[in-house]
Amino acid sequence: MTNTVDVGIVGATGYTGEELCSLLAGHPGVRVVSVTSRQHAGKSVTSVIPRLGRRAAWDALTFIEPDIDALLASDASFFFLALPHGQAAGFASALHAAGRRVLDLSADFRLRDASVYQEFYHDVHPAPELLREAVYGLPEVYRDRIRDARLVACPGCYPTSILIPLLPLLRGGLVETTGIHASCISGVSGAGRKAELTLLFAECNESVRAYGVPKHRHLSEIEQELSLAAREPVKLTFVPHLMPVTRGMHTTLFLNPLAGEFEVMRTLRAAYADEPFVRVGDALPDTKHVVGSNFCDVTSRLDLRTGSLMIFSAIDNLTKGAAGQAVQNFNIMAGFEETTGLRS
Amino acid sequence: MTNTVDVGIVGATGYTGEELCSLLAGHPGVRVVSVTSRQHAGKSVTSVIPRLGRRAAWDALTFIEPDIDALLASDASFFFLALPHGQAAGFASALHAAGRRVLDLSADFRLRDASVYQEFYHDVHPAPELLREAVYGLPEVYRDRIRDARLVACPGCYPTSILIPLLPLLRGGLVETTGIHASCISGVSGAGRKAELTLLFAECNESVRAYGVPKHRHLSEIEQELSLAAREPVKLTFVPHLMPVTRGMHTTLFLNPLAGEFEVMRTLRAAYADEPFVRVGDALPDTKHVVGSNFCDVTSRLDLRTGSLMIFSAIDNLTKGAAGQAVQNFNIMAGFEETTGLRS
Amino acid sequence: MTNTVDVGIVGATGYTGEELCSLLAGHPGVRVVSVTSRQHAGKSVTSVIPRLGRRAAWDALTFIEPDIDALLASDASFFFLALPHGQAAGFASALHAAGRRVLDLSADFRLRDASVYQEFYHDVHPAPELLREAVYGLPEVYRDRIRDARLVACPGCYPTSILIPLLPLLRGGLVETTGIHASCISGVSGAGRKAELTLLFAECNESVRAYGVPKHRHLSEIEQELSLAAREPVKLTFVPHLMPVTRGMHTTLFLNPLAGEFEVMRTLRAAYADEPFVRVGDALPDTKHVVGSNFCDVTSRLDLRTGSLMIFSAIDNLTKGAAGQAVQNFNIMAGFEETTGLRS
Amino acid sequence: MTNTVDVGIVGATGYTGEELCSLLAGHPGVRVVSVTSRQHAGKSVTSVIPRLGRRAAWDALTFIEPDIDALLASDASFFFLALPHGQAAGFASALHAAGRRVLDLSADFRLRDASVYQEFYHDVHPAPELLREAVYGLPEVYRDRIRDARLVACPGCYPTSILIPLLPLLRGGLVETTGIHASCISGVSGAGRKAELTLLFAECNESVRAYGVPKHRHLSEIEQELSLAAREPVKLTFVPHLMPVTRGMHTTLFLNPLAGEFEVMRTLRAAYADEPFVRVGDALPDTKHVVGSNFCDVTSRLDLRTGSLMIFSAIDNLTKGAAGQAVQNFNIMAGFEETTGLRS
Repeated sequence: MTNTVDVGIVGATGYTGEELCSLLAGHPGVRVVSVTSRQHAGKSVTSVIPRLGRRAAWDALTFIEPDIDALLASDASFFFLALPHGQAAGFASALHAAGRRVLDLSADFRLRDASVYQEFYHDVHPAPELLREAVYGLPEVYRDRIRDARLVACPGCYPTSILIPLLPLLRGGLVETTGIHASCISGVSGAGRKAELTLLFAECNESVRAYGVPKHRHLSEIEQELSLAAREPVKLTFVPHLMPVTRGMHTTLFLNPLAGEFEVMRTLRAAYADEPFVRVGDALPDTKHVVGSNFCDVTSRLDLRTGSLMIFSAIDNLTKGAAGQAVQNFNIMAGFEETTGLRS
Repeated sequence: MTNTVDVGIVGATGYTGEELCSLLAGHPGVRVVSVTSRQHAGKSVTSVIPRLGRRAAWDALTFIEPDIDALLASDASFFFLALPHGQAAGFASALHAAGRRVLDLSADFRLRDASVYQEFYHDVHPAPELLREAVYGLPEVYRDRIRDARLVACPGCYPTSILIPLLPLLRGGLVETTGIHASCISGVSGAGRKAELTLLFAECNESVRAYGVPKHRHLSEIEQELSLAAREPVKLTFVPHLMPVTRGMHTTLFLNPLAGEFEVMRTLRAAYADEPFVRVGDALPDTKHVVGSNFCDVTSRLDLRTGSLMIFSAIDNLTKGAAGQAVQNFNIMAGFEETTGLRS
Repeated sequence: MTNTVDVGIVGATGYTGEELCSLLAGHPGVRVVSVTSRQHAGKSVTSVIPRLGRRAAWDALTFIEPDIDALLASDASFFFLALPHGQAAGFASALHAAGRRVLDLSADFRLRDASVYQEFYHDVHPAPELLREAVYGLPEVYRDRIRDARLVACPGCYPTSILIPLLPLLRGGLVETTGIHASCISGVSGAGRKAELTLLFAECNESVRAYGVPKHRHLSEIEQELSLAAREPVKLTFVPHLMPVTRGMHTTLFLNPLAGEFEVMRTLRAAYADEPFVRVGDALPDTKHVVGSNFCDVTSRLDLRTGSLMIFSAIDNLTKGAAGQAVQNFNIMAGFEETTGLRS
Repeated sequence: MTNTVDVGIVGATGYTGEELCSLLAGHPGVRVVSVTSRQHAGKSVTSVIPRLGRRAAWDALTFIEPDIDALLASDASFFFLALPHGQAAGFASALHAAGRRVLDLSADFRLRDASVYQEFYHDVHPAPELLREAVYGLPEVYRDRIRDARLVACPGCYPTSILIPLLPLLRGGLVETTGIHASCISGVSGAGRKAELTLLFAECNESVRAYGVPKHRHLSEIEQELSLAAREPVKLTFVPHLMPVTRGMHTTLFLNPLAGEFEVMRTLRAAYADEPFVRVGDALPDTKHVVGSNFCDVTSRLDLRTGSLMIFSAIDNLTKGAAGQAVQNFNIMAGFEETTGLRS
């Protein structure tokens, strides 16, 4: 496919939305035709997001209010939703009903079961009728279904960093389904662009802390996908930490192995041999090698003394953990080479 | 005891040694009479460590070569050794033989068994005859033996951050002795002041990575002390991570509980009710609340969904994890109030 | 004077107020008897400021509303005001009228002329009758007047970092009074603890920017004091920058010299030879050597090629630039050794 | 021109060399055929620079020794030299003599006068015969000469950040040629990847300091170009500072204006209206808006109170300040669109 595709971005001024704009600005097959921002409606996009500037197409774009009629008036055949959970569902429903294809970066359509949504998000699901149709946007698992999907629910950053290394091992029966402990460390942009005291520079700098223990919302989608892979219910203990970097996410998983280290590495390598963005290597991952890219770096170690298996992964929470993964899904849906716009 | 005590510091220009100087400069009962630095011998101490300046006693001090005869020529009755492992033992032996009391901050005398030292440090122990006499310098456990000790082996930072929250639970039989997973995050000063590429600002900034997996040297002393508390052999799986802060260490432990959350917290609170530097609280610890202090903050959470127990701690790796703990031990040995010089 | 002095702190939960609490907690001659916080009234002080904890006196303190009657009901003979400008004046007036001595850390009483206040703060001065009595709290200049003052207006961080190196040169006629260019770099805590997007970690990290150009409010007090020293009106061009550190302030001044480098250094050294917190040295100052201390490090360089003189200084913006200076003033007023509580 | 150009990179493992590899990996018209690294000769390039990985061409590349015969054996028609000053000249001479076109990122060929080199670099120039032919690689000034140049000397980061905002003002006679004061702040990567104690994370983090005052080597090329623009000798006072960010450079210039603010901005806008990488705007520049891009953001402010003019600029020291500028020059030389490979 070589024609240009018109797309719209709903909610472009959070960190994820801004990263999405940045990636799509470098995508040779995309023309962004509408960008919404409640806060900045009426302003030129490049006055608010300077790094997009000096591109004629972007310098001419102006933020519009997130109004569904205005969005439908545009020619965009694809819409990216970078909104808080709960707010995305309304836009997704209306755009979907109008025949536009939707990539939702919120949590609204990641769960198959509306009652699990209610348990973890403490609210009735706003559009349960779409849950059946939505495809979980992890290309390494659902590529074939993503291709023709009309609504793709892009995974969160923690889920991506845990699922990529762990799914092949559960699928192959190489680890027990119990006693899974996840210790994850996220950069501060993962918490969003919110004017909150706890996110101030002087509060986050020179600080590390766990938070959201023991029942973080992302657990719901993680366990859904782990259980599907294992073909039995899987639960895990999940501790997220916040560290003073802007971008980056590191995950350490403690597992009870049912196979040896060689077999584990062979399975991981085989699972991702043809994947453009998953790199299974020998070295322990370092977030600085993936920041700004769509890569997920993975390795494992067996502790012979205790018998525990450790799996490690590193991603950029705003790229493979959000906007980059959305663009990867878009490329699959729109028929582009999967790495288009995600290479530099 | 109210008189001033003369002390010497061997190896004052690493991060631990510098912190030791800083703490002792604020100690009302200490006079530092000799300070060694191979690199800076002959220079005034305050020209090399500016934060000590404008104190008459320190402005007059000059670094000397780390020479045992010169050290013995001084009146110091206590010596702090802030040297790399393997280098401390020689000084400790000579000073001990001469009747001086020694606080060693290296790993040389932390293990009771020379063969374990050899296994983890890949070298014959340099002074095995002293291992029997050395006391492990964790005041919360060995206060009574520290009081009259002639050689105190101060624990490392990872051991301190793991042992303080975990020992009371093993001692009381509240957690299983297997399946212990430790995920620790350390600031970069913990790696020492070494001119290595991997420790450069541009390598550590905006980066997080695991390292030293699966058999970090500190495991030897951690397992020694855990086994003593549990009265049976204990092994753990230990993953240290490096994060971009100068000071601070955060530990998350995953455990299999044999008691409920209430009992766990009650045991932790009871264990440390009278300890001046261990604070068991409800909030998840944040390293920024302990940096610059000798505190160890501790709490726990039970994940009812998985049945796993999590214990969290935060310390300053250079204070409670090194120099502060050494001063605490010194206060016990010399008869000062235990918090002297450690309060601000 | 050896008795304990009772003090009150009005506004204790900003960065300056918190630092003030921390310093006073380590002051052997102070008992803090009332601490206000609108936001945290009713909570225990140490639950909000953990680093104060494990001190019996502080663990027993509870925040009260900032109510003038409640403050007057306490026995405190000294009050520290750590409030935004405009809010401090009302408390200062009432406390002053009741015979209590006041150390105001806001900008409300730093200017001698109410019309200059109005020009720079865009508001009528709230208590002009007190301007005559207030003493500018820079001990290196006004120590004698501070001793008996009833109202001390502690200088801001930028003024302190510029005035200390520059006043002796203007006083001695060693530099021209025109063509003064100040380039200052401040840590983010200097902007206060405010829930603003521009102060978020992900906005300040990996960023440096100038701001507040060309007429920053602090210019008014800087030029007032420079003019007094020069005995003629002095104006300067002032560019503040924000950098990604929590604490620290670095100042570079470009000047037209009327004397040689030797004379400049001799004058600076002579001016501060007996000052406990000003260190005139040969090395270029580094903020990391003064962070956590009340020091101001100073040096100069002459560019022989262009004839320009450069003066450099470094302070901790929260210590010598705010809370530390207030405690230094308090020590002078209350008859303590000037360094009490400011040494470690 | 649409064919692929074969290029070689000499010295690829410093920060500049690594950034060059990264940019060229995303350049659609370039094939990198040889990459040298003394330290890593024999290893695969992507094992050392992970962010280049998963590109077939790069995964197949192996570092070679920096040997001139090996380089000449390759088909590369262009060579980028990312070597320390003094080491580049020999390679440049040999490659130039063999008819290859050279982009040198070192300081070796930036000065027109070998005696100025000797004054600032304290060494006899290693290849003075080439100084006449070398073109100073600032495209905004020398684009026409760069097009056919056989040896381009790419400017340093400080020079780029000072020359771009200042040259148009000197050329147009809008500012005096005396009394120019430059206060620059650089990220730590600007100091290179060297195993030195002063560059350690724990030394640079939470620190800001001036250095290299008063006669930094970069002054020589800055003054050469300023003097050419002003058609009279120009000297400036230059203070570089180091701040704790990995990438980014901010420059504040204090000037004596000979024209009003409107005229200054009009001149700057006119000078760069057609430049793809210089953005003259109203907002004060922030390095975070240019990091990862080849942009130079510029603005000015006049202080009406003092009559001083301030000019501000922000660049990424590794992109527009080094590797990006080299690629921009390469695009001009090889006939590519000037922004090729520099857009995302």
